[in-house]
Amino acid sequence: MIRPFVVGLVAMALALPLPALAQSADLRAQVEKMDQAWEKAYNAGDAAAVTALYTKDAKVMAPGAEPASGTKAIQALFEGAVAQGVKNTLTQEDVVGFGDYALETGKYVATSADGKHLDHGSFMTLLKKVDGGWKIHRDTWNSSMPQK
Amino acid sequence: MIRPFVVGLVAMALALPLPALAQSADLRAQVEKMDQAWEKAYNAGDAAAVTALYTKDAKVMAPGAEPASGTKAIQALFEGAVAQGVKNTLTQEDVVGFGDYALETGKYVATSADGKHLDHGSFMTLLKKVDGGWKIHRDTWNSSMPQK
Repeated sequence: MIRPFVVGLVAMALALPLPALAQSADLRAQVEKMDQAWEKAYNAGDAAAVTALYTKDAKVMAPGAEPASGTKAIQALFEGAVAQGVKNTLTQEDVVGFGDYALETGKYVATSADGKHLDHGSFMTLLKKVDGGWKIHRDTWNSSMPQK
Repeated sequence: MIRPFVVGLVAMALALPLPALAQSADLRAQVEKMDQAWEKAYNAGDAAAVTALYTKDAKVMAPGAEPASGTKAIQALFEGAVAQGVKNTLTQEDVVGFGDYALETGKYVATSADGKHLDHGSFMTLLKKVDGGWKIHRDTWNSSMPQK
């Protein structure tokens, strides 16, 4: 009579945390898909496509500029940014989800068109679910390199 | 018979949004209290008191430095920062709450001990409820001033 009891305990131990873990892994994957869409649009120099990933009332706090709020200001910001020809690679670190919002932190590496390292740093992004899909609602980043 | 009906409608219109607004205003006030505690500790040069406002597994992504994770690294970061004698003033912008988490964005102004403007920029902070009180769980900021 010990065996079924142990099997029952193992099944419970396995069953209880799994839904939470599965949901978390799924959320990470959903947010990573957004990162990849951002990278693809940015590295193609397509400021309109980058801007389309943000909510209509998003706020982007880029270093070296006053915060940009709303579609028009955000697109102007990214038009200036992509014009420099810099390519960005994003790496997800942690994701915390809360219903219709998710917060991601991660790292970026910026390289020139010919692959030279220009900059690297951190980003922090609040995503919001809009019409069933994720959009970026708040976004900021900074360089980890020593400041001049 | 019109009057009670109108009064009823006004009462409904007032009553329905109030709980949400009240909660939101309360959350803003709670988060602002945290900002004030941060300012007070930072401007007193008390790195340990600043660090005590963060969760044990917090991450601080300061500009010009690799991210600092955990109490020891965060205290070392703030010891270096407060040693420069800079005073910070924080102004809350928007707060989004989701149960045990809240995300705040805002602006900072950094001045020298004699009140000279040194820097200003944005911050973005994820707060987490720990043992019934708010702690800072993720924190980052950057300067809005043109980069050299």
